[in-house]
Amino acid sequence: MPVSLPIAETIAPAIDALLPELESIYKDLHAHPELSMHEFRTARIAAEYVERLGYEVTREIGVTGVVAVLRNGEGPTVMLRADMDALPVTEATGLPYASTLTTQDEDGSQIGVSHACGHDLHVTWLLGVARLMAERRDAWRGTLMAVFQPGEEVGRGAQSMLDDGMIERFPKPDVILAQHVMVAAAGTVGYRSGTILSAGDSLKVRLFGRGSHGSQPQTAIDPVIMAALTTLRLQTIVSREISPRDSAVLTIGSLRAGTKENIIPDEATLKLNVRTYDEDVRTHMLGAIRRICCAECVASDAPREPEFTTLSSYPMTINDAATVERLRVAFEARFGERAYETEPAAASEDFSLFGRAWDVPYAFWFVGGTDPQTYAQAKAAKKLNALPSNHSPKFAPVLDPTMRTGLEAMLCAALAWLGIEHEDASEGA
Amino acid sequence: MPVSLPIAETIAPAIDALLPELESIYKDLHAHPELSMHEFRTARIAAEYVERLGYEVTREIGVTGVVAVLRNGEGPTVMLRADMDALPVTEATGLPYASTLTTQDEDGSQIGVSHACGHDLHVTWLLGVARLMAERRDAWRGTLMAVFQPGEEVGRGAQSMLDDGMIERFPKPDVILAQHVMVAAAGTVGYRSGTILSAGDSLKVRLFGRGSHGSQPQTAIDPVIMAALTTLRLQTIVSREISPRDSAVLTIGSLRAGTKENIIPDEATLKLNVRTYDEDVRTHMLGAIRRICCAECVASDAPREPEFTTLSSYPMTINDAATVERLRVAFEARFGERAYETEPAAASEDFSLFGRAWDVPYAFWFVGGTDPQTYAQAKAAKKLNALPSNHSPKFAPVLDPTMRTGLEAMLCAALAWLGIEHEDASEGA
Amino acid sequence: MPVSLPIAETIAPAIDALLPELESIYKDLHAHPELSMHEFRTARIAAEYVERLGYEVTREIGVTGVVAVLRNGEGPTVMLRADMDALPVTEATGLPYASTLTTQDEDGSQIGVSHACGHDLHVTWLLGVARLMAERRDAWRGTLMAVFQPGEEVGRGAQSMLDDGMIERFPKPDVILAQHVMVAAAGTVGYRSGTILSAGDSLKVRLFGRGSHGSQPQTAIDPVIMAALTTLRLQTIVSREISPRDSAVLTIGSLRAGTKENIIPDEATLKLNVRTYDEDVRTHMLGAIRRICCAECVASDAPREPEFTTLSSYPMTINDAATVERLRVAFEARFGERAYETEPAAASEDFSLFGRAWDVPYAFWFVGGTDPQTYAQAKAAKKLNALPSNHSPKFAPVLDPTMRTGLEAMLCAALAWLGIEHEDASEGA
Amino acid sequence: MPVSLPIAETIAPAIDALLPELESIYKDLHAHPELSMHEFRTARIAAEYVERLGYEVTREIGVTGVVAVLRNGEGPTVMLRADMDALPVTEATGLPYASTLTTQDEDGSQIGVSHACGHDLHVTWLLGVARLMAERRDAWRGTLMAVFQPGEEVGRGAQSMLDDGMIERFPKPDVILAQHVMVAAAGTVGYRSGTILSAGDSLKVRLFGRGSHGSQPQTAIDPVIMAALTTLRLQTIVSREISPRDSAVLTIGSLRAGTKENIIPDEATLKLNVRTYDEDVRTHMLGAIRRICCAECVASDAPREPEFTTLSSYPMTINDAATVERLRVAFEARFGERAYETEPAAASEDFSLFGRAWDVPYAFWFVGGTDPQTYAQAKAAKKLNALPSNHSPKFAPVLDPTMRTGLEAMLCAALAWLGIEHEDASEGA
Repeated sequence: MPVSLPIAETIAPAIDALLPELESIYKDLHAHPELSMHEFRTARIAAEYVERLGYEVTREIGVTGVVAVLRNGEGPTVMLRADMDALPVTEATGLPYASTLTTQDEDGSQIGVSHACGHDLHVTWLLGVARLMAERRDAWRGTLMAVFQPGEEVGRGAQSMLDDGMIERFPKPDVILAQHVMVAAAGTVGYRSGTILSAGDSLKVRLFGRGSHGSQPQTAIDPVIMAALTTLRLQTIVSREISPRDSAVLTIGSLRAGTKENIIPDEATLKLNVRTYDEDVRTHMLGAIRRICCAECVASDAPREPEFTTLSSYPMTINDAATVERLRVAFEARFGERAYETEPAAASEDFSLFGRAWDVPYAFWFVGGTDPQTYAQAKAAKKLNALPSNHSPKFAPVLDPTMRTGLEAMLCAALAWLGIEHEDASEGA
Repeated sequence: MPVSLPIAETIAPAIDALLPELESIYKDLHAHPELSMHEFRTARIAAEYVERLGYEVTREIGVTGVVAVLRNGEGPTVMLRADMDALPVTEATGLPYASTLTTQDEDGSQIGVSHACGHDLHVTWLLGVARLMAERRDAWRGTLMAVFQPGEEVGRGAQSMLDDGMIERFPKPDVILAQHVMVAAAGTVGYRSGTILSAGDSLKVRLFGRGSHGSQPQTAIDPVIMAALTTLRLQTIVSREISPRDSAVLTIGSLRAGTKENIIPDEATLKLNVRTYDEDVRTHMLGAIRRICCAECVASDAPREPEFTTLSSYPMTINDAATVERLRVAFEARFGERAYETEPAAASEDFSLFGRAWDVPYAFWFVGGTDPQTYAQAKAAKKLNALPSNHSPKFAPVLDPTMRTGLEAMLCAALAWLGIEHEDASEGA
Repeated sequence: MPVSLPIAETIAPAIDALLPELESIYKDLHAHPELSMHEFRTARIAAEYVERLGYEVTREIGVTGVVAVLRNGEGPTVMLRADMDALPVTEATGLPYASTLTTQDEDGSQIGVSHACGHDLHVTWLLGVARLMAERRDAWRGTLMAVFQPGEEVGRGAQSMLDDGMIERFPKPDVILAQHVMVAAAGTVGYRSGTILSAGDSLKVRLFGRGSHGSQPQTAIDPVIMAALTTLRLQTIVSREISPRDSAVLTIGSLRAGTKENIIPDEATLKLNVRTYDEDVRTHMLGAIRRICCAECVASDAPREPEFTTLSSYPMTINDAATVERLRVAFEARFGERAYETEPAAASEDFSLFGRAWDVPYAFWFVGGTDPQTYAQAKAAKKLNALPSNHSPKFAPVLDPTMRTGLEAMLCAALAWLGIEHEDASEGA
Repeated sequence: MPVSLPIAETIAPAIDALLPELESIYKDLHAHPELSMHEFRTARIAAEYVERLGYEVTREIGVTGVVAVLRNGEGPTVMLRADMDALPVTEATGLPYASTLTTQDEDGSQIGVSHACGHDLHVTWLLGVARLMAERRDAWRGTLMAVFQPGEEVGRGAQSMLDDGMIERFPKPDVILAQHVMVAAAGTVGYRSGTILSAGDSLKVRLFGRGSHGSQPQTAIDPVIMAALTTLRLQTIVSREISPRDSAVLTIGSLRAGTKENIIPDEATLKLNVRTYDEDVRTHMLGAIRRICCAECVASDAPREPEFTTLSSYPMTINDAATVERLRVAFEARFGERAYETEPAAASEDFSLFGRAWDVPYAFWFVGGTDPQTYAQAKAAKKLNALPSNHSPKFAPVLDPTMRTGLEAMLCAALAWLGIEHEDASEGA
């Protein structure tokens, strides 16, 4: 089994030198977050950086996507992907470089924009790897493809790049890799074969009744009742229709109907999110949601069928076993016990769309971003849920050693396929 | 039993002459609606009008309330009341004098303001009566008190006038009278002894849960579930706790929780409206609502008790029997078969607060405002509910004969107590 | 308007003489109750009694029904009806002549049989009237038809008599009359024009799921959930679909599913009862029940539609206005203030089927059976509901003066049509 | 690591000879099933059999329990346990030796009694092992304790034996072992370290309302509504309060209230069963059930708190890791690929109470009883749930090779601790 240890070690001094620059890029990105499909500044910074390093850069793939290719002789093609978008979350980290940008939410009120999911780190890591690989072309053979993706948070970015000719316009990779900063001790890397991220499906369901004055319910078809009964019925999918062995979550994050206490409104709107870890379970749940919403409307004698809108739909992220095994060897060589097998996370990604579209193996792993001592205390107290997690206004990965760990992890991963010491190393094995 | 017929008849020509002026006032008021407790322009117009007629006018009783007193010798004191406020309803009547004013609703979006409940007519009628009475002081004896009340639609106006010293500052009436334009054939007057309007109680209930990411329901206390179960539980008050003999309505006009599909929110808000026609039923329902909301929060393990806010609270309007009998005689004398005994309406008023505070008899009656032919057709087709009713964007009373009918009804009513022909008339009876 | 007062008065001494015999018949019937459609002994006693009086008696009309006709010259035909059946209720009156008979309920356990609805009194009253009328043929003209009906409690008796040729085999009456002992002060008679008894519809609904071991809900379709949701949905008919002005009750008196805690059963059974006072409301409710049950089964993905069985179906009892007016005059002449206009009762009867089938006017009235002092105290304390009412194990009308009152009421009623003093009386009016 | 292979092999011929006798015992036991805590005949047969083999036998430990001890020199003490009781299930296997015995269920109707959970096999296997061990005392050293336990199906038997002095009266074992026939290919043995069986808690909950006539819901507190809402609320424990990562089931197997459609009953009864695989989850669920039932009664204004009765309470069965490792080696040596690591089963046992009471390691494993071809087809068709499983009326293990497999498995297991070839074997390892 080839290992990428030697190259990583020879590159170590270069990493030390690079960290200050990366930290500066990171803080700038963090202070200038951009919402999904609007990552214009971020994309420009990334594109210019890798262009200076000699990559062939294609911009505006799927609105703001960037694909940077570095050909370095015969060898495999490895695609590394970083997502770029931020979230409509008002940052409350108190960091000196915290975002103060805002946007308008659905109701017209102001809300902050921030990198509450760490994509600024993802971009920075990939820029760092791109630089190290460009500077040490002697150490590897093959083709490196660095991809900066828009719109992951809305589940549209990967698809928009694919729709924009990604497959036709760029070389088919042998493997596709990506990493994500998560709540785990900083310095650690979590890998997993098979399902590592759940499928996530979000729906908006409009239930149509018939409004009336509140004193005349008999002339109305009350959508508040319809929504309440639908809400309860939907609970029985998880409690009764899914095997206790399978993990599944159905959350109704929003239920809205009416504004005045004495006016029966015309309709109610549910927004719901489904997470599953098995395709059969997912299919069953999505079907059951439709079945229940439709039948509840019939039970209410609703004038129309409910209207379903897909808000987002993320497939499961199912890591290729052989790919993960190669990563495991590389990570253990570099990180020792800091590399561990992780549980699947109740989160979703559109990253797997690339692997699915090209039909090539892919893998996705986690890089811990929480202060190790804080993490250990929370774990001991069974209060991991109290830590600021991704999407929290207080989400703030500790830079040391998270910046270095992610950089090394992705570098090791790329070299596990591209490194020329492979042959030497395997000779010696 | 004294009847006011003769005076009304002698005044008839004066009415004909007055109608064009009243119509002009009405259209102006209609085009310049003001929201509850903000009736500054309307109050000024009313005050100036009656002041010119010789009334002693007190302004700004309870913010914008106006009390105008005309003393005319020995005799009973009769208080006539008109409410002045408009509604946050975007007018869709297509009238040339329709309102184009707007305000901002809770969510920050623009919404029209209009006289969708006909209070502009109420003010106009009372101004007309005030003028006729001022011009024909020879025809009556006693004291007339014309009261222009703010904030009926929010249930605050009558109380604010009482809180502002109404009882201490003005003569105690012998009887208090008011009328309301309603969906009924224009030209008719509907009276009723006993309960004519329901009690109306509106509550806002905040249910407190604990938010979380949608993928981790076990760390949350889901307020959407709490709200759905509370909503259904509340249905059982009417279906199981109230006698089938009693009328009661509980409408949840608004249910709101959360905005994002994958974020479990911290709380849910219900706004509900209760209508009852019996004090015991009302007490039971309000108690049952609290019992159920509190218990459902306990069932959910909520971190806090629910928070109840009274949005408005209207007592029942229970007409005095002797007062209504006197009105019946007067109305039948004037309107013949166009005066009829009405059913109670599922609507509420704060008018009765004056009678309750002074402990004097009061009565409230309806004046039809719908085109008689349209009304008859809708009734035959059992589609009365399809007619634009009070609070509807299309509510538009037909002016002829509604303007005259209301004017005559209130005039006859006042004269049933104040008219000097009483003695003559009763002598002849 | 003819009144029957004189004849009733001349018959008074005969009533005194008759009461001991009637009391003896009553106690015998009370001690020997028979379930619906099994009134063999009761029917035989009644038939033999009237046969001895000279009536033409036809037995076994609709299993156990008895029709006894007494023709007495030209004049109207009056049908008087008494129902005969008892109930599966274990008597707890403590009376010396209490029933000790038992039967087996659905579950196979023993349950008492008793006259908990007072039909024993109804039979006795009619026998007394039959005797008095037979003995005083001089006092009336026309045809008296005494009908002893089976199976009122199951809503099958009147229909079974009609199905057995009632209309073809017997003279068409001019009026049909019946009375019922109720919770009201003994000595009083309650009449009412229009609806006096609600419609009553009882349904059994079987909801089909799919059983499974309790640990594998995903392989089951849980009928317990289906039944719970259906139960709650059904509450919204009364709370939301019926006008607050209309009276309606939907009671689910029985809900049964499964026996073992860890076995998901195959089905659930609801038994429900609907009471309405308006045909449109009734039609809407029965339709809504089907709509809801069917839709809830679809929502559950049930393998079959629910199965509906009509347990009983009683139409409204709507007294003819002219008939009641004649009764009112007769009752007031006899009982003075003890005759009163009653509210409709939330109870149902199949009595009106006779009037509906023959298309002739009918009327039904109440005879109070509660000790007057006890009744007055309960009323003052607003605890009328605490009195043992019909169907209660403790239901026991006080015989004095209830026996006499019912006898006189029905006699007066019959004579209001048949009495020859009519002419004399009306001459004097 | 010592292995027991040699002894098992030398004993093989003895097994062949023994099978016909065991089959005869098995069929007799199968045809004579006895309900929990009434295993008098079975216990007598077992006790007499092992007594004849020279065991010291103690009877009537915990009603019908039997403990048989065979001391054979220095060495560890191994306890083997078989449960003896049958179920109230009407057998529908069509076997020539099927049970025709019956008992009376709660409702008074007849129901069959049968060995629908295979405890007859468990007893037979243990008798066979007891005989083989008694006949080959040369092959092992130590103490064998064969325990025949009553009342497993009601969760009372193990505790009743412990309450009867089990620990004080018998030697403390070094390890406790038991096996169960399950739906899996006959010939296979499934082992697992850690949790192999769920905790199972069954409760009866009586909800108290107040009955009334169905037409007067306002005088009642409707327990049907209370039960329906409680049922739905309970669904939210699994759907919202338990982590998607944890397995948990809450089944309401029985919901019963009322018998007549028009009588609101006094109470409703739920019977529910909870299965969990984690002590914290179990504690949370049992607490949540009480919280919800109590709060729902408050919401209904119930006159009393609900009444909770524990129907049964089984702890989790958590196999000791070292014990299972020793078993794994023994099973693989004997069965090769027919020994496999199994998933936990959604079933519960009171077996672990012995290990918990003595504080010694224990292990429990599964022996497949389904025809291998049938099993393979069902698995391929994803219809394993359609196979007749434990507690099904059609549960019927195939005797060949199930009888032999269970016998060998338990023999190998016992010898893994007691076999003297250990030393020899380990010398050779």
